[in-house]
Amino acid sequence: MAKRFSVSEYTDGVLSGNRVMLSRAITLVESTLPSDQALAQQVLDAVLPHAGRSVRVGITGVPGVGKSTFIEALGLHLVNTQGHRLAVLAVDPSSQRSGGSILGDKTRMNLLAAHPQAFIRPSPAGRSLGGVTRATREAMALCEAAGHDVIFVETVGVGQSETAVHSMVDFFLLLMLAGAGDELQGIKKGIMEMADAVTITKADGDNELASRRARREYQNALHLFPLAPSAWSPVVTTSSALTGAGVPEVWAIVERYVQQTQASGYFQRRRQEQNLHWLHETIRETLEAHFFARPEVQQHLPAVQQRVLSGQQSAFGAAAELLGL
Amino acid sequence: MAKRFSVSEYTDGVLSGNRVMLSRAITLVESTLPSDQALAQQVLDAVLPHAGRSVRVGITGVPGVGKSTFIEALGLHLVNTQGHRLAVLAVDPSSQRSGGSILGDKTRMNLLAAHPQAFIRPSPAGRSLGGVTRATREAMALCEAAGHDVIFVETVGVGQSETAVHSMVDFFLLLMLAGAGDELQGIKKGIMEMADAVTITKADGDNELASRRARREYQNALHLFPLAPSAWSPVVTTSSALTGAGVPEVWAIVERYVQQTQASGYFQRRRQEQNLHWLHETIRETLEAHFFARPEVQQHLPAVQQRVLSGQQSAFGAAAELLGL
Repeated sequence: MAKRFSVSEYTDGVLSGNRVMLSRAITLVESTLPSDQALAQQVLDAVLPHAGRSVRVGITGVPGVGKSTFIEALGLHLVNTQGHRLAVLAVDPSSQRSGGSILGDKTRMNLLAAHPQAFIRPSPAGRSLGGVTRATREAMALCEAAGHDVIFVETVGVGQSETAVHSMVDFFLLLMLAGAGDELQGIKKGIMEMADAVTITKADGDNELASRRARREYQNALHLFPLAPSAWSPVVTTSSALTGAGVPEVWAIVERYVQQTQASGYFQRRRQEQNLHWLHETIRETLEAHFFARPEVQQHLPAVQQRVLSGQQSAFGAAAELLGL
Repeated sequence: MAKRFSVSEYTDGVLSGNRVMLSRAITLVESTLPSDQALAQQVLDAVLPHAGRSVRVGITGVPGVGKSTFIEALGLHLVNTQGHRLAVLAVDPSSQRSGGSILGDKTRMNLLAAHPQAFIRPSPAGRSLGGVTRATREAMALCEAAGHDVIFVETVGVGQSETAVHSMVDFFLLLMLAGAGDELQGIKKGIMEMADAVTITKADGDNELASRRARREYQNALHLFPLAPSAWSPVVTTSSALTGAGVPEVWAIVERYVQQTQASGYFQRRRQEQNLHWLHETIRETLEAHFFARPEVQQHLPAVQQRVLSGQQSAFGAAAELLGL
């Protein structure tokens, strides 16, 4: 087991912006050991008054869309010309202890990874979606307390993670490719409607015209869809991490969104709703985990599920049977 | 309290297609009295082997879209020219004990309500969404056991109910109006992506050209969106309950969907998944209801929620505190 520190060592280290202590504090909140979790809660309660002062951006797109290069280009713009301190986190429950399919290899963002104002952290590995999202939300608070005023949360766009990420960020950015038709791009149904902005990536060279056409098509399509509670109309742009074209514009859109929703009060209200959502989500997950861990439930569950699957027993009757054990 | 019958009286009545006994059996499953619920489970277990042989269609659209008239026109087509036996149910948790905003007034579908092959039932009133969806799913099984081979489940398109209805039907139909722009139509974000078909209603008279244009726009937009796991491409049509134009076509689309997904095995697989979904959903709801009903939780919850809302305590720490009570 790695070395553990005291609550005040973790807290002071994080608040002073010490990157090594930030990393170690994140390792602590990712730990599943009960002793670590108790310590982690104390550290979190101590830093929490200093957290929250950031813009949280979820970024999703399937493999091949150029997510790492786009994030690096946008991230360098933020740290080099906007004076921001950026943290890049990831939610990828499929990642294995050996590495993980996203952000496992920091060499894919080596300029950003080496930048003193940037902090990159791969998805916690070997955990359920619930475990990963919990750890990521707590890591986000630690990064904010350490002075990072922009947080990117990256996800892969093909699984259950996007809804979870959408529930922990202020702004949701979807990366798409021109041409492929998004059923080929593998994006899950429903993700499009969560997007506050879509950017068509790799809009350079031979791909530029097709990207502009895709931009118009998606913009027209999104106009047909209902307005979000934020009253924000999603924007579609083109961008190229290679030439840098359109990259600052994406950030300008995020800033405009933040201004507009802070002025309307939606920004703050949404954060409060997200906090309550995670409170209830955690309670729900814990209650379920305890229930399904009970030996008598484990013993009867397979037969009951089989009867429900085959239509021999109603779902509600079966639930009542299991709950009565 | 209304008169109660024996399990075999309810069961025989339902299976013989007796409409009065079907109504009474639905009243029984809607009841929140523990004694009724025990009886209801016995009746459901008895009829369940005879349930499931129907096509279940969710129909949604905001007030003003002409939902009742469309359902009546489509329903009359089914019973008069297709030989079907139709049941029309509704999910509307906002409906009050006094009536309910949808289907509360059967006079809005008086031709269909009077038809011997049709059975219309308003949303159970004065219940939570969980209670309404449970009762509606059980009413669906009773209607199927009574020989209704097409079930419509109507919902209002503006709340949480659509996701629940989507989880209990085979096919999801969205009614839209031309012209208004759907942000004005009030349809909730995400509902569009659940639709297997969209029909632009009131496509008659002065509205016909605009309806055709809306059809093309929505069709183009839906093509940009990802394919559902059913591998079905959503279809957009125009229809008029007034002239009857386009109404049989909507049913032909449902039939084509059923054929295609039964051939691929998706239809059966989805039903099984829905059964399991409702098993887990019921367990989750019951566990939560018990937890939040505990006096010590009720006592501490307001203060804990306040600390989470104001950002003084992390959602996870607060959950741990409540769970430890």
